[in-house]
Amino acid sequence: MTRDACVLLDRADPLGAMRDQFVLDDGVIYLDGNSLGALSHPAIKQVRALLEAEWGRGLIRSWNEAGWIDAPRRIGDKLAALLGADPGEVIVADSTSVNLFKLLAGAARLRPERPVILTEVETFPTDLYLAAGVVDLLGGGREVRAVPRTELRESLDGRVALLMLTHVDYCSGYMHDMRALTEAAHHAGALVLWDLSHSAGAVPLNLNACAVDLAVGCGYKYLNGGPGAPAYLYVSRHLQPEMRSPLWGWMGHASPFDFSPTYAPGDGIARYLCGTPPMLAMAALEAALDLWLSVDLETAWRKSRALSELLIRLVDERGADLGFSVASPRDPWVRGSHVAIRHPEGYRIMRALIARGVIGDFRPPDLMRLALTPLYTRFVDVWDAVDRLVEVVAGRAYEAPPYAQRLAVT
Amino acid sequence: MTRDACVLLDRADPLGAMRDQFVLDDGVIYLDGNSLGALSHPAIKQVRALLEAEWGRGLIRSWNEAGWIDAPRRIGDKLAALLGADPGEVIVADSTSVNLFKLLAGAARLRPERPVILTEVETFPTDLYLAAGVVDLLGGGREVRAVPRTELRESLDGRVALLMLTHVDYCSGYMHDMRALTEAAHHAGALVLWDLSHSAGAVPLNLNACAVDLAVGCGYKYLNGGPGAPAYLYVSRHLQPEMRSPLWGWMGHASPFDFSPTYAPGDGIARYLCGTPPMLAMAALEAALDLWLSVDLETAWRKSRALSELLIRLVDERGADLGFSVASPRDPWVRGSHVAIRHPEGYRIMRALIARGVIGDFRPPDLMRLALTPLYTRFVDVWDAVDRLVEVVAGRAYEAPPYAQRLAVT
Repeated sequence: MTRDACVLLDRADPLGAMRDQFVLDDGVIYLDGNSLGALSHPAIKQVRALLEAEWGRGLIRSWNEAGWIDAPRRIGDKLAALLGADPGEVIVADSTSVNLFKLLAGAARLRPERPVILTEVETFPTDLYLAAGVVDLLGGGREVRAVPRTELRESLDGRVALLMLTHVDYCSGYMHDMRALTEAAHHAGALVLWDLSHSAGAVPLNLNACAVDLAVGCGYKYLNGGPGAPAYLYVSRHLQPEMRSPLWGWMGHASPFDFSPTYAPGDGIARYLCGTPPMLAMAALEAALDLWLSVDLETAWRKSRALSELLIRLVDERGADLGFSVASPRDPWVRGSHVAIRHPEGYRIMRALIARGVIGDFRPPDLMRLALTPLYTRFVDVWDAVDRLVEVVAGRAYEAPPYAQRLAVT
Repeated sequence: MTRDACVLLDRADPLGAMRDQFVLDDGVIYLDGNSLGALSHPAIKQVRALLEAEWGRGLIRSWNEAGWIDAPRRIGDKLAALLGADPGEVIVADSTSVNLFKLLAGAARLRPERPVILTEVETFPTDLYLAAGVVDLLGGGREVRAVPRTELRESLDGRVALLMLTHVDYCSGYMHDMRALTEAAHHAGALVLWDLSHSAGAVPLNLNACAVDLAVGCGYKYLNGGPGAPAYLYVSRHLQPEMRSPLWGWMGHASPFDFSPTYAPGDGIARYLCGTPPMLAMAALEAALDLWLSVDLETAWRKSRALSELLIRLVDERGADLGFSVASPRDPWVRGSHVAIRHPEGYRIMRALIARGVIGDFRPPDLMRLALTPLYTRFVDVWDAVDRLVEVVAGRAYEAPPYAQRLAVT
């Protein structure tokens, strides 16, 4: 493999032109789209329109006239297409954490005779925290059981109300077999909740085909919805009537503008709304999703795999003698769209890399994460990133100050 | 009173120049700032900077370099100055509804032997809903007791864990005596939670002087933070160590970037964070608050009262024969900064008024609400609004189609 070969791959890339839709400085190789997706030109346009025309000129009238009131459902329907869900099964609202709470509490109460929320020890910490908070709040002998990945299936017993898993592991990039685990959980009489934060916009998803009950995910990673973008939740249509959110906010009411003193949950997915939707953030997310819906998704997933295969190959070829190694699964069918590279000096190396314009991130204790986002990462970016990685490690450039100094956000 | 006198009042208004900071069309008289505050030029500037420079160019680095990670606390501290709270007692996060849930559940668990959340029947519906959801979730014989306003004090018995009240009534504009009711609740051994959604940016507040325990409020009304702006919550410093949020999200963790598998609540107000803050919306709110902090607050409250006194006087003088009447308290010291006008045809009248550029809103069954926002409402706006109101009612202009047709958002 050579740099020229990468240039040729970019020329042949059917998604190559999509990069022009994004704001990316020439001096930067951005491989952190799994933490914060890049800004697109349509998002700039839509946020400005919302800000200046809809809020500024339309003012309160925009709730009706600019369709603000329908945004959580409308944007949810757009997202459903990326998740393999039906319209009316996805809604955009709140943060991933708050949505997890809604579904965890709702699901736990649907199976009151089963006290266990089962998950894996390596799931994303906020998922563990929220589940622990729910069992602490609901009491009744409930517990969170976090087991190693290999023990998940055998742990699915008659005490499990819900299997909650992060589909793609935020550290290693390991991707669970959603279909098989969902089936195993159902076989044990449990419900399933998937956290898709590192999956949506990164790998193929088909929630309906996998008979998934519940899912959540965030809007600001591969979806490119902006920093702290609204998150989403999915509730399978068959579960919608029997489950309730514990957050009885007015936007989830059957008739929010009747101002009735008693709560009545809305029909379908609307009952999972709580407060007033944050419209500036919704505008950025909607523009980003419209961009997603303009590409052929199979082409995008194929490119994701090709990019991560290239990165792993180059790290293998050039990094083995330098003490770094691939910590992600080598089989692209059990891997998300980021690659974790292990090095004991990972923190300092990543800071030195960022100073050289290659932006990835670090997760303790020793993982550098590099995300391959199919809409704006080029094959040549992968080549150049590995080139600079080799340069930083071989030349021990990471030993210079201030790379050891910890930042607030790592 | 004449229109010319109103023009003179505007000329003498020390806050007159502040209106230039806002985007307001000449043809519009905007009296709905209690539903959605107007857009300011600094908010445009700050949102654009966040969008294009911080997200677009800075990308993930902006969590450290642009101070995103500190925003909930930093903006909370700015807001504290408007609420009469100390730095470290207010945090900006989530929606008012979600924040209510955090504090309601937290407070209920602080007083487990007291099963009652006491409130008034006319409080804002979402407050009733959230409280009902919390007692439904926690069980243990808990209940929400909603009594008429006049029975609040006598209902404060030894079974009350929490008195939850909307400080300024969203319909009538009636303002509770925060100090006296807080004292009465404390005397009965209960905690107090005030919803300040219709108060902050409208009336003087001094949470510390009133010894308030808990408060929430929204950012998009008088504060001008934008549609669905992040909300806020206040926890008195003395309660912070003993109370917990039931939403154990990673941003409220003592060390969110350690990715520890076990939850440990952050120190102080930080533990009431949950998910990742929505930065585009935070930017708009911060700019709006900076504008608030540039004015003398006593001058603003004095102007609020003068505007609403003028409106009431004009409605009395010109509206009595036309079937409309003031539904708000006549004493400005027990009134917020909006005035409710009652008319059996209120819905159609308000739609006809909006079509004529006077934007207020309607609350069932018969209340037209007109908000007097001290930063951008002029005395002459009040005159002109009443003029058009009289014109619409006297000429029965509201009987024309399509004014009877209900909109999604009223």
